[in-house]
Amino acid sequence: MPMQPIKFYYDVLNQSSRALYIFLEASKIPFEAVPISLLKGEHLTGEYRDKVTRFKKVPAISDHGFQLSESVAIFRHLAREKLVPEHWYPRKNLGRSRVDEYLEWRQRNMGVACTDYFQQKWLVPYLQKTKPNERSVDVAEKQLERTLNDFENLFLSSKRFMIGDNISYADLMAICEIDQPKYIGYNTFASRNKLTRWYDAVREELGPYYKQVSSEFENKLRKAEKGHKEAISLKQ
Amino acid sequence: MPMQPIKFYYDVLNQSSRALYIFLEASKIPFEAVPISLLKGEHLTGEYRDKVTRFKKVPAISDHGFQLSESVAIFRHLAREKLVPEHWYPRKNLGRSRVDEYLEWRQRNMGVACTDYFQQKWLVPYLQKTKPNERSVDVAEKQLERTLNDFENLFLSSKRFMIGDNISYADLMAICEIDQPKYIGYNTFASRNKLTRWYDAVREELGPYYKQVSSEFENKLRKAEKGHKEAISLKQ
Repeated sequence: MPMQPIKFYYDVLNQSSRALYIFLEASKIPFEAVPISLLKGEHLTGEYRDKVTRFKKVPAISDHGFQLSESVAIFRHLAREKLVPEHWYPRKNLGRSRVDEYLEWRQRNMGVACTDYFQQKWLVPYLQKTKPNERSVDVAEKQLERTLNDFENLFLSSKRFMIGDNISYADLMAICEIDQPKYIGYNTFASRNKLTRWYDAVREELGPYYKQVSSEFENKLRKAEKGHKEAISLKQ
Repeated sequence: MPMQPIKFYYDVLNQSSRALYIFLEASKIPFEAVPISLLKGEHLTGEYRDKVTRFKKVPAISDHGFQLSESVAIFRHLAREKLVPEHWYPRKNLGRSRVDEYLEWRQRNMGVACTDYFQQKWLVPYLQKTKPNERSVDVAEKQLERTLNDFENLFLSSKRFMIGDNISYADLMAICEIDQPKYIGYNTFASRNKLTRWYDAVREELGPYYKQVSSEFENKLRKAEKGHKEAISLKQ
């Protein structure tokens, strides 16, 4: 009996959606991708809100009718319920505990800093059809600087990936998070050698899966920016 | 060969420390409790910072020399490595995925709102030997109201506990988080019937383990408050 594909609701503008998309593809888990447009507010209304997730967020899944939100909870669910390559969440040398340690830390640090910067610099101006508020961007940028320094100091070493020689979900989540500011022009790498080396290693390891999703992300950003410029010029 | 106890570094003033303390006791996991005083800044200096955790936070553990921070990562580590009653993190009916969903959500919601209120109303005034800033407390209180409403709507139902008839780590983490504002005088229960019913059920189920840790928490708060009053009156 063929496995029924899971339904995966996502928007490539969202870092957690991209991480799960890449994970699903790289792990060969059968899935049906259902795009939900954050910019059009599709996560807030209609069937998605009423029948898919009460959280009004992307990503979400439906696995044989079992509905689940929160991307990292979805990752752990898939790691338990599907056939997934061991390196993403390794049992060896207590690797799972180390991956978990990062995934908790990120919630109060990388998740907040990368999202705030993206919102202040890009999303809020887009939705309000204005220019970015310089002071808010400045505050967000300082927080981002501190957080990237902490990330380098606390989680990167001379090893190729965060918890050793193999890529894990910690690396995948982190690169997608860092791409939020990076893809809208923030210089992530200036004087951060360890971060640069790690970023290149992760990108190389993820290969075509990362490349495809990132290019969709980039296209969506540039297309929205074009519309945004026109909206602003019409107002003036 | 007897199991070597884990070393558990904690402060009862911290909600995640209390949740783990109760979990360790209730699960009969052998442990040596090492108190680290947040009010004295012991988490920021000395052997704790240099040899126990690079995160400068409580709680932390050392398990046969394996050092781990982030309380929820520690919970999952113990659930994997020790003999732990199944109900805390149940495999049945995909209960683990539901527990995980809450534990992710809490990081950006309950964790933030309960901690902010505690800091503005109690910790910042204590450390700075001042009275609480009314505007800051007001902002924190509004955020707390919204978050407790969301918690009730999204996670509580007619069932006894969050994911069914048995208590899980989601309930334990949630009650300890709610106790941060509650134990410093915030009225958590006004017009929240579902929350009140759930809170009483969890407290009853945890029995003496909860009672003992909560009473240590309360004593520490009241003792610090006495010193704080004296410090303020000396300044005037």
